[in-house]
Formats: sequence, structure tokens, C-alpha cells
Amino acid sequence: MGNALQTRVSDAAARPLFGAIEGGGTKFVLMIGRSPTDIVRRASIPTTSPVETLARCIAFFHDAQLEQRVSAIGVGMFGPVDLDRRSATYGSITSTPKAGWGNTDVVGPLTRALGVPIGWEHDVTAALLGERRWGAAAGLDPVLYLTVGTGVGAGVFVNGAPLHGLLHPEMGHLLLPALPGDEFSGVCPFHGRCLEGLVSGPAIAKRAGRPAEDLPATSPIWTMVAEYLAMALMNYSLVLSPRRLVLGGGVLHQPALLPRVRVSLRRRLADYLQHPLLRERLDEYIAPSALGDDAGVLGALELAQQAVRPT
Amino acid sequence: MGNALQTRVSDAAARPLFGAIEGGGTKFVLMIGRSPTDIVRRASIPTTSPVETLARCIAFFHDAQLEQRVSAIGVGMFGPVDLDRRSATYGSITSTPKAGWGNTDVVGPLTRALGVPIGWEHDVTAALLGERRWGAAAGLDPVLYLTVGTGVGAGVFVNGAPLHGLLHPEMGHLLLPALPGDEFSGVCPFHGRCLEGLVSGPAIAKRAGRPAEDLPATSPIWTMVAEYLAMALMNYSLVLSPRRLVLGGGVLHQPALLPRVRVSLRRRLADYLQHPLLRERLDEYIAPSALGDDAGVLGALELAQQAVRPT
Repeated sequence: MGNALQTRVSDAAARPLFGAIEGGGTKFVLMIGRSPTDIVRRASIPTTSPVETLARCIAFFHDAQLEQRVSAIGVGMFGPVDLDRRSATYGSITSTPKAGWGNTDVVGPLTRALGVPIGWEHDVTAALLGERRWGAAAGLDPVLYLTVGTGVGAGVFVNGAPLHGLLHPEMGHLLLPALPGDEFSGVCPFHGRCLEGLVSGPAIAKRAGRPAEDLPATSPIWTMVAEYLAMALMNYSLVLSPRRLVLGGGVLHQPALLPRVRVSLRRRLADYLQHPLLRERLDEYIAPSALGDDAGVLGALELAQQAVRPT
Repeated sequence: MGNALQTRVSDAAARPLFGAIEGGGTKFVLMIGRSPTDIVRRASIPTTSPVETLARCIAFFHDAQLEQRVSAIGVGMFGPVDLDRRSATYGSITSTPKAGWGNTDVVGPLTRALGVPIGWEHDVTAALLGERRWGAAAGLDPVLYLTVGTGVGAGVFVNGAPLHGLLHPEMGHLLLPALPGDEFSGVCPFHGRCLEGLVSGPAIAKRAGRPAEDLPATSPIWTMVAEYLAMALMNYSLVLSPRRLVLGGGVLHQPALLPRVRVSLRRRLADYLQHPLLRERLDEYIAPSALGDDAGVLGALELAQQAVRPT
């Protein structure tokens, strides 16, 4: 018995540990572990200046290094970020509106200070990879992850890899038809009534005159949000033909929303796409995030593992 | 000199030949060759019954077989088609509205009669692959091919392969905002005013009261078509972040259309996507099909070559 236990402990100690950084506009979440059920250290630090914030990230992994040395670190970062490995600015945040963070090299300082491989992705793509490894998008391809909160962002996994492209998907800014009689001008500074301009937290707050979380489930505003989200999911379905749409973010905390989105999408598709998933199993086709607020940092943990996984 | 010429001729004879079938609702185009500049035989047959039409395809390749044996045949077929290799009905046309063609096995009879590998794709995806190999989408990834004619169809190449997904992309049915004052109800039997319901040949004809080809370039209907196409291309750009959008099909034969689409897209993007291609080089970003009506059959020729290409 004693020997068996000792062997198991040694096995666990021998299995590599990974690091994760989820970089957001207000805080950075840091983690050391192997999986959602095997997290050995975790911290959250406020997003201040790039120099100070990255120094605190480095200190977190340095402090842990004696007994918890990581084999690689994954980073899911607020964007836009440069993902092109052939680019001189690969690993940087590029033209973000966040003060002080424009043109900030992230992968460079981490690599120099910590000397391990660094996985690097846009934060929404990291969340997608987290959901795909351990959550609601489990192993599916193609699959879409949509987060609806202060903004609306999305990541797509297709043909074995995240979709990057010329820039990166900006699906939150989709153009949509207006609901009859809806005169709301939207809140997107670029496009007014695009999806983000209609269903983001700030859009709901502006319509309602109070924060979205204070709006009762019976408010007709939630019905409008559900209709616009369903239109967007219809367009995503037509363009990407995904096997599942996974929805996360603060706005989805309203439990009345997702069931209404499913009913609306079912009606709008009008049986045009003939697949049981789209006609009878909408609750499987449109799924809530399984990892919730941890999708991003767990996706970064998956990115770390991908960084050293033989391809 | 004589010997050199003989060597070249023998080389050409030794290089493998490929077969191509583009199956459409009104005609099938058949081809034997190697590339757009090396076509050795070509025919067009009317689409009648499945049995008769496939027999004539088989006869075309049988007749050629003595001196022009093909190593593989690619098929680009009107859909919907079953592309899932694990499916019992792989290689079939599934639930098409075309009379007599529902649940028609295509790859099975061709394989049995001709004994060569068969490449199999949706017709629009074949056209995409043709443009990607020899045309306007040359080697790009991700890239989108859109055809606007009797219907609106699209194919996407992303992360090294065509996008298939749960069913296949049905991008022609995208939901779009209405132009101010536009009361036209659209022609799509499923969705009314989706993209196809607004810009297909029949939609233009219904608005104009005459065929699209008889409508002068000065008609304001072309401006509306350009605006709706630009909205669709904006949504495709936001979802897929393609490196180029290639447009083909009969409606694009109106030369005034494409320049207006570019101007409208430039305005609608409102500089949100910051890339020179989207701000200054729209004529490169939105390109006309280079292979025109041959995109499909040449794509089928590429499919044949893929069927025997080591991966």
C-alpha cells in the first residue's frame, strides 16, 4: 500500500506542469497545473502598465520555479495581437485602444525571463481551445465559441486549427436585419447597429437605462437580444456549418436568454438546413460554456501543452 | 534536335492524364487533360436522367481510354451531396429538389465502371479549388469563392482544406439589413429577403420586370445589388477573415457591379479592419473569377489530381 501510494505521488510529480496566462483589460489570471481538476497554483493580478504587469507574471512563475517548474506557458491575450510567426512583431499586442498597451511585445519578455516555449493566441481563441479540450466544444470541428459581454467576440476551430486569416475573425461586428419597429441606434462606434452594437452589455444597459444584470427576465429587451443573437447564429451557421455553437460571457448569465435564442433560430432556419441537430436538438447545437469564466485561462493551459506536443 | 523533340513528346505522353466532370442542373461538362492550357478532350452533355447521364459520362471516358487513359477523375456536383467518407451514402447526391436526382449514387457507378480513384465535391467547392489552383484565388488560405447566378453559392478554403462542417456552407442565405426604403420582399422560398432572395438573377429579374442581362448599367437596381453584395462580403470578411473574395457567376457579367461593391464595402467597413488590403487595395481583395465558366470543371480536374497526390 505504502509503496503504491509513493509510486502514484512520484508519477504525478514526474508528469510535466504547465503555465497559463489570460491577459484581460482589467486583470490577468495566472495558473500552474495540468487540467481543470489538477490546478496547483493560481493568482489574479490587476492590469496596470505593460512593464509592471508582465514583471508580476514573470515573478509568479519564478516564485513557483523551485518545486513547480513549468514545461511551457500558454498566453491568451486581449487583442488585437500579432499571430503571424513570420512577422517581426509576432507575439505582440498591436493597435489596441487600451492606453499604454499598443505595440507591446509579450512573448519576447516571457521567453527571455522564463526560458520555456510560449503558446500565443487571442483571448477568445484561447477560450475556444479551453472549451474544445475540457468543455462544451469537446473535440468538435468546426466549432464556434461566442462570448457576449462588454463586447462580442468569437473564435472558430476548423480543419484542425483555429481560424486566423488575414487579420482574425471579428464576428461581433456582423450586420443584421432590424427587428420591426426597433429604432435603437446601437452602441458600436464603428457600425452602430452591428451585433455588438445591439446585444453587448453596454447595448442592453443603454436600451434599459440600467445595467443588464438588473433587468428582469420578463423585460421585452431580453426577447430582442435573443432575436438578434439568433440572427447572428443563423449567419454563423450558414457560413461555417459548425457542429456546435458554444456561448459564454456575462450577458448569458440571464437564464431566460439561451432558450429563447434556440426557439428563434429554429424558426428562422425554416427547416432549410436539414439536419436533426438543427431541427430537433437545438439544445445540443447551441450550448452554454462549460468552463465559464475559466475558459480563457484553461485555454491558455491547453496552449502551453500544444506548444510542446509533437505534431 | 530530332531526339530532343522526341524526348519532349514522350515526356508529355508519359505524364498522367486526369478526368473531370462538372455536374450541373442543365448540363454536365466533361474533360480530359492536365491543366487549363493542356486539355486534350472536352464535351458537354445535357442533364437528363441519372442513369442516362452517368452512362454518357462513363462512355466519354471509355471512348478515350485507348490512347487517353486517365489516372483519376474529379467530380464537382450540384448538391446537396454527401461528402462524409464514413457515411454509407458517401458519393451521392442527397435531397436535391431536381426531379429524379434525389439519393443518386454518383461515385459508386463511376468507380465500378472506370476503376480509377474518384475525387468528389460540391460544385461550388470544385470551382473554388479550380480558382485556387489556376485562377484568382491562387494558393490563398483562407479564401472565399462566391458565385451569383440563378442561386448564390460559396465555397471556403481554410487551414489547408475546403470547409465542410455539419452540412456544408450555405452562405447564399445570409440575413442582411434592408436598405432604407427597400420594400422588395425577395424571392427565396425559405427566407424571402436573404442574400440569394435579393441579388440572384431571378431576384433582379423580379425587381426589374425583365432579365438581369437586359438591365442597363445605369439602373438603380444595380446599385442596390451592389449594396447587398457588399453587406454580405462584409459579413463574410468578419467571420472568415479571408485573404481574398473571388466572385463569379452570371450576375457578375454586369461590369458596373464589382467596382460599386468595392466602394460600398470600403465605406461599410469604416476602417474597422485595419489592413492595407481592406483600406487601399479593395480591387485586389475583391477579385473577379479568372476561370469564368470553366472554374467548376477545372476544379474537378484539380480534384482528380488531389485524389492521387501523396499527402
